[in-house]
Amino acid sequence: MRELAPRSALDTNRAKQGLRRTRNRDGSISPFRILLPHTAMTTTPVIPEYLSEAEIERNVDSALIEDVGGGDLTAQLVPSDVITRATVISRENAVLCGTAWFERCFRKLDRTIKITWFAKDGERLVPNQPICAIEGPARALLTGERTSLNFLQMLSGVATKARQFADAVSGTKAQVVDTRKTLPGLRLAQKYAVLCGGGGNHRIGLYDAILVKENHILAAGSIAAAVSAARQVAKEATHCKFIQVEVENLDELRQALDSGATMILLDNMTLEQMREAVAFTAGRAILEASGNISLDTVRGIAETGVDRISVGSLTKDVRALDLSMRFEG
Amino acid sequence: MRELAPRSALDTNRAKQGLRRTRNRDGSISPFRILLPHTAMTTTPVIPEYLSEAEIERNVDSALIEDVGGGDLTAQLVPSDVITRATVISRENAVLCGTAWFERCFRKLDRTIKITWFAKDGERLVPNQPICAIEGPARALLTGERTSLNFLQMLSGVATKARQFADAVSGTKAQVVDTRKTLPGLRLAQKYAVLCGGGGNHRIGLYDAILVKENHILAAGSIAAAVSAARQVAKEATHCKFIQVEVENLDELRQALDSGATMILLDNMTLEQMREAVAFTAGRAILEASGNISLDTVRGIAETGVDRISVGSLTKDVRALDLSMRFEG
Repeated sequence: MRELAPRSALDTNRAKQGLRRTRNRDGSISPFRILLPHTAMTTTPVIPEYLSEAEIERNVDSALIEDVGGGDLTAQLVPSDVITRATVISRENAVLCGTAWFERCFRKLDRTIKITWFAKDGERLVPNQPICAIEGPARALLTGERTSLNFLQMLSGVATKARQFADAVSGTKAQVVDTRKTLPGLRLAQKYAVLCGGGGNHRIGLYDAILVKENHILAAGSIAAAVSAARQVAKEATHCKFIQVEVENLDELRQALDSGATMILLDNMTLEQMREAVAFTAGRAILEASGNISLDTVRGIAETGVDRISVGSLTKDVRALDLSMRFEG
Repeated sequence: MRELAPRSALDTNRAKQGLRRTRNRDGSISPFRILLPHTAMTTTPVIPEYLSEAEIERNVDSALIEDVGGGDLTAQLVPSDVITRATVISRENAVLCGTAWFERCFRKLDRTIKITWFAKDGERLVPNQPICAIEGPARALLTGERTSLNFLQMLSGVATKARQFADAVSGTKAQVVDTRKTLPGLRLAQKYAVLCGGGGNHRIGLYDAILVKENHILAAGSIAAAVSAARQVAKEATHCKFIQVEVENLDELRQALDSGATMILLDNMTLEQMREAVAFTAGRAILEASGNISLDTVRGIAETGVDRISVGSLTKDVRALDLSMRFEG
């Protein structure tokens, strides 16, 4: 685990400097000093182990290839020696996520581009809040604008939604976690965005944990047989974070507990069933609620006493954050 | 341009067969015959030139790698020789898109898996409508379930939204088109989904058309100078679909028309301004409306007489279609 920002040669401690300095290098007063609101860091922005520099690069490369392809035809209308500045602002309340992807887009296009961050991943944003200033060749700024914003708006959208869910259950012991219902090719980035919004990560993929579902139980013959087989698989695997068993009613819950399962997923249960499950389990296993959970229903579910609530819509339904890159006139 | 389905050895004319046959190979009555509703093809499902087999494979490979990684731990609970069947259904009204991605997920996992399609990309779906049946090794079906559904639910979500916008402007001359505000790495797939929903594609990226915006005009000195420079760039490019000029008011529109622009983007204009723009232009250029257009406002905009309406939310805000893969007990 390492600190996310500042994390490149482009950004040597500028995030902190942005908050402090009152004058630009040319001596003028920075407009950002005046506009900058009080921001509350709500989630420590660390990059989890599953998200490598190589993965961020893979994301960025595929996005730049599909947008720029053989070259930006329109950018040729701007002389190659023009240097310009732009500011990215949020038009709405949000949680920021995606600074590393944003930065890498521009670094790929032109290594002389300088980015000064005024907010970090995981930080709450208010409308019109400046997120960063960018300075460099106008052609490269124009070429990178859309791709870099596409990352920032999607990932901030995910972080913002995760924050809404996390806030909705605050004060309960429940943690909101993501699922494997993610946008193809963007899973690791989205799971990082969930962390930035104060949510938790369920398993990353099929390879790092076991989730025993109905079909696995049918194949094994019983919940006890499936749990026993899962323990054997976990023992032989290089890495298995947990074994979780999905149950649909209290009878299956009892069987799962009897088999020694320590992590149980309550699938599509009513609030009453969840309360009964929590009482019956009495702390013997970690209970997770799952199934079409919305912002309207998540608080009631958290108050049943479950430990975790997994929410597919965190990552499968995405609303892009409304961002704007404003060029200096 | 080539027909999308059937398009692989796995699927030799099964889409059509699914609609006709009443008996399965084992002689039993197919349940799909009974459930299958009348469906209306609304958009011819063709794969556009920009979407190659290689691109679909790239999408699928990155999704399978992030989900399956070193292997599906839980699938090992199922004996390797178990063959099973499953059916994918839509739980809501929708437009289908993504059959090629879905199929390729399973083909990558096990080439013996057989998929029988009951609907094609571009076709309207009603709740509980079976989309396809899958038969093959249970392990591979369980492993591929989430990744294949992630493609189908995201792309069908985009196609469904495009259909809603296209339906909202029906009877007017306006066409709803997409933008470059897309999910990183999924642009070409999403643009194909927009076609499946009856929308149109704007430029694919920065490389296939010119869109002259405020910053390019500032750099060139005037709209006339920018259009003249754009014509030169287009002439020297291997491929440039069109030159479009963005204007913010009627004075800029006049300048654009005077410079000979034949495609003009009206940015964030009021309905009254758009009506005036349409009257003033009098057919001399293709007019496109743009700027925060929603399902609530798109009809009114279409009725101003503009030719195209570009909608960022088609591809940047995504709601996954509610799909289910049901395994036979």
